[in-house]
Amino acid sequence: MSTCKIAPVSGAMDEQIAHGINTKTKPLGSLGLLEKYAAKLAAIQQTLTPSVSKAQMLVFAGDHGVCAQGFSAFPAEVTPQMVHNFLHGGAAVSVFCQQHHVPLLVVDVGVNVEFTAHPLLCRAKVARGTYDFTVRPALELEQVEQALTVGRQRVRHSIEQYGTELFLFGEMGIGNTGVSSCLMSAILGISPEQTVGRGTGLDDDGVARKAMLIQRAFDRVKKEHGGSPGAWPLELVLQEFGGLEILAIAGAMLESAAHGRAFLVDGFICTVALLIAEQVNQHVLDYALFAHQSNEQAHQTLLEHFNAEPVLDLGLRLGEGSGAILAYPLLQSACVFLGQMASFESAGVADGSS
Amino acid sequence: MSTCKIAPVSGAMDEQIAHGINTKTKPLGSLGLLEKYAAKLAAIQQTLTPSVSKAQMLVFAGDHGVCAQGFSAFPAEVTPQMVHNFLHGGAAVSVFCQQHHVPLLVVDVGVNVEFTAHPLLCRAKVARGTYDFTVRPALELEQVEQALTVGRQRVRHSIEQYGTELFLFGEMGIGNTGVSSCLMSAILGISPEQTVGRGTGLDDDGVARKAMLIQRAFDRVKKEHGGSPGAWPLELVLQEFGGLEILAIAGAMLESAAHGRAFLVDGFICTVALLIAEQVNQHVLDYALFAHQSNEQAHQTLLEHFNAEPVLDLGLRLGEGSGAILAYPLLQSACVFLGQMASFESAGVADGSS
Repeated sequence: MSTCKIAPVSGAMDEQIAHGINTKTKPLGSLGLLEKYAAKLAAIQQTLTPSVSKAQMLVFAGDHGVCAQGFSAFPAEVTPQMVHNFLHGGAAVSVFCQQHHVPLLVVDVGVNVEFTAHPLLCRAKVARGTYDFTVRPALELEQVEQALTVGRQRVRHSIEQYGTELFLFGEMGIGNTGVSSCLMSAILGISPEQTVGRGTGLDDDGVARKAMLIQRAFDRVKKEHGGSPGAWPLELVLQEFGGLEILAIAGAMLESAAHGRAFLVDGFICTVALLIAEQVNQHVLDYALFAHQSNEQAHQTLLEHFNAEPVLDLGLRLGEGSGAILAYPLLQSACVFLGQMASFESAGVADGSS
Repeated sequence: MSTCKIAPVSGAMDEQIAHGINTKTKPLGSLGLLEKYAAKLAAIQQTLTPSVSKAQMLVFAGDHGVCAQGFSAFPAEVTPQMVHNFLHGGAAVSVFCQQHHVPLLVVDVGVNVEFTAHPLLCRAKVARGTYDFTVRPALELEQVEQALTVGRQRVRHSIEQYGTELFLFGEMGIGNTGVSSCLMSAILGISPEQTVGRGTGLDDDGVARKAMLIQRAFDRVKKEHGGSPGAWPLELVLQEFGGLEILAIAGAMLESAAHGRAFLVDGFICTVALLIAEQVNQHVLDYALFAHQSNEQAHQTLLEHFNAEPVLDLGLRLGEGSGAILAYPLLQSACVFLGQMASFESAGVADGSS
């Protein structure tokens, strides 16, 4: 698997940034987490006037062969149906992107339908979905690299065309909450019972079935390759379990970081994409901002793994990048306060120490 | 004290509203709290396309005589200095209002300085601050009514001129975190030790001194009027402790509700203003939306009293209405998803039940 060069974020301006934040006309620390986001964005961009005005939402879509086994509350046909809904402006991520004037591009990495051309659609299909991982590897080895590359290319293209300052990533793929649980278990060596959740709305039986199907896939891989979850090489894990849209997001995150661009991590599935990206190059974390804490239990575990302090905690569990776009105005606010608020000195206000 | 007629929000459309939310192209309940805010706004406005686009931020400012005793981390001169900062666009609430295109009006109800005219300033001074409540009542009885009326008038005027759909209230007044603790203790009968906090940045000694000063005021009132905190009539509490900007906000909340308008409650001080408004007419709560959970411990107690589920939890403790304006885009998102998202039927997407 190809590597990816990422420069760690420089600490050279940290003192200046802290001084800038602490001399604004407000009690010390009184903007709470917003101050941390401002400091992180300022450090990433190495400026006291960070900006996220040029933002881009990239929603990657793909299908999952394991859905044939009953892996989701929704039928697999919903993936292409929702892609159409994104393109026609009717989905949650569509209306929120319109609200915040953030351009939305849907990237077909692996939907099981051929789409006609549309200005909001990038057709970059690697395959018409993954194979059913309970019976064989989800992907061919070269498809892993291809999916990562789709994500990288979209990010590179966006920066070249648009000068993107912040990426928001979303996903659509019926079954991909379960595939993310599978990937999390396979990478971190945690049992599927601890990483599966209700996804889009499974009942207890559905959740148990999901864990059972993941365990069946693990047993197959163990038999064929030896080893065990937590010890398998990343390349094997990605080939065995997919999925195409998750890999594309991991590639997009790595490319975003390689270009020194911050990105907003949406919910559970995108956080698993970050887990994959972290295995490739841990410096990717320097550029990651966490949008929200979702209702999916395993998401909380992962956020703790990343020591993340997400912007929102609204009990969201929709995906699509909806949490990222909802958190976006708060990152703008972080930039706005650091860039535009008066200092005690410039405003002639006495600070608390006087 | 004058009463205030408020119609409880009608439940007539509740079923229609729930149906509207539940048939959007998303898993059931997957927008979490955003769905509750959408339902509340739709019920208040009795429509399936609620709107908060016409929003108005009203920041009420006043001084507190008790500051002479050392009641805040900041000197009292900061109140007028910060009013100037609001007017010149340098404060947190200023830059966030600009970000969201929400007009800001600062209302001087009781600052200890005479301001010259400014287009963003409403001069409605009731007094040049309150009296020091450790030695005498903070206000004359008629000043209580006058302060409530200032808030009511600004809201009425805004609705008449602008058709305001949502009010955001903020406050500025050095010492008013402590005065709010005092009011909360006096109304709910909780000891000052449990309602005081660090405010804008007091150390342990400062917090203890604040509780002691409140207790001294309580002892004085007990001696003069008998009774005890939790049992005093509201009118007496407001006259004894003030403050002018807090009363104006309570009046503004009541008037907003009387006109069927939703309002966003900012942090601890505004939540205490809501506590006062609730004593006047409990139906005011039907129109209240809670912006954020602040770092002030007593704020959490109060939010529990109101069974509130605030939009944000960012560890803010700035006041000024900053939390309200930061939460504002999420209320817009609540309106946008209910008003603009496609339904499963209209988008031709299979729902989870099929």
